[in-house]
Amino acid sequence: MDKKTFTQHISQQYNEDLERIVTRVMTMGGLVEQQLEAALDALVNGDQEKGEQVVTSDYKINAMEVELDEACTHILARRQPTASDLRLIMAVIKTITDLERIGDEAERVGRMALHLLDEDRRRSPMAEIAALGEQIKGILRGALDAFARMDSEQAVRVAQEDIKADAQYDSIIRNLVKHLEDNPKSVPPVLDIVWATRSLERIGDRSRNICEYVIYFVRGKDVRHISFEQMAEEATGDRR
Amino acid sequence: MDKKTFTQHISQQYNEDLERIVTRVMTMGGLVEQQLEAALDALVNGDQEKGEQVVTSDYKINAMEVELDEACTHILARRQPTASDLRLIMAVIKTITDLERIGDEAERVGRMALHLLDEDRRRSPMAEIAALGEQIKGILRGALDAFARMDSEQAVRVAQEDIKADAQYDSIIRNLVKHLEDNPKSVPPVLDIVWATRSLERIGDRSRNICEYVIYFVRGKDVRHISFEQMAEEATGDRR
Repeated sequence: MDKKTFTQHISQQYNEDLERIVTRVMTMGGLVEQQLEAALDALVNGDQEKGEQVVTSDYKINAMEVELDEACTHILARRQPTASDLRLIMAVIKTITDLERIGDEAERVGRMALHLLDEDRRRSPMAEIAALGEQIKGILRGALDAFARMDSEQAVRVAQEDIKADAQYDSIIRNLVKHLEDNPKSVPPVLDIVWATRSLERIGDRSRNICEYVIYFVRGKDVRHISFEQMAEEATGDRR
Repeated sequence: MDKKTFTQHISQQYNEDLERIVTRVMTMGGLVEQQLEAALDALVNGDQEKGEQVVTSDYKINAMEVELDEACTHILARRQPTASDLRLIMAVIKTITDLERIGDEAERVGRMALHLLDEDRRRSPMAEIAALGEQIKGILRGALDAFARMDSEQAVRVAQEDIKADAQYDSIIRNLVKHLEDNPKSVPPVLDIVWATRSLERIGDRSRNICEYVIYFVRGKDVRHISFEQMAEEATGDRR
């Protein structure tokens, strides 16, 4: 990561503590990415082993969230950070909550995939869901990259990608509704596909949240709950 | 609220700052409760005005989240809290995230209710959904009470109520699946009801999260991601 973005402290130990926390967030992010990858393999290709792996591995992400929360509390108590260091810790506390929930959504996709093992994958809009899955993987990766480099312009680009993914999601859901209307006998499996698709969309939203924390860290400005245009302006403008 | 649960500080101002933050969380919680109440009126009774009110009022909750996050960051920077004060601030930071998301789910219920204005409410399992809605209102109220009094035993009772609500949710979804199978022509409205029911279930889960933060504050122990039995033991045991 680009150490220039951090205040350098007289205490070498403090610098190391902060860097270690960011490294651990990236490790947690890597694990979440693996879970999403495996969940998509299970959903799109019917890979049972991957599906089971996702369902049985979520506890690792939960454990990392708890450990990182403790590490942040410890730094707050011991180092009493201010200014950008404090914003970094706040961004980490919020990011790990979203990463943990992304892990939950990936687990949900994995569980739905296990329900769907015996289904004919050509019947449902699986190609579109696979494409959405790739988009969402890119968004999560992009959000983690933005976090690692604390790059607010990258964060804006990722948020924009998520808007495109939402449109793709809407189109798939319309398709699935039509499918339900035409095939009343296949309601439970199609509904499982609806839930899995919904979880993918939620992962995009949560990745976008991470982008907002990056902008908060870099610009010192809370960009939640505002329009994309306002967010882009805050992230790239030179006020501060 | 029971001030005995807080460390009293030599600085009267510091005590007041902490108390003011808790009061603001309760104000935010009250607004979220109103939103849920209005969303349920819209869903169960087809009250259009209430539905529109929910959709147009969510911004107030979002604004409170941003303000409270700022207030917490300010206290962290200025007062550099430790021990139970720090745990309080951590619990607040996490609680307001969940309250904001509960607001989002209530808004979603309100939006679905607006889609369903012209539907015949006798057709769907609306009585069961109304009962679930009452349960969820009780759970949110209970979680906010536990937070206001920092009562970890109350937090455990609320978490147990949420387990019951999850079972009720499963039963309603099974009912709705059967309905979709029997009435392929009514897929879009029934799917809207599915989404609304799902949002109610999520509100229960998020209220339960708040209970976990209460136990974290009172007991100094992170009880996320463990079984209900373990959580109950941690919350009521006398270790510490």
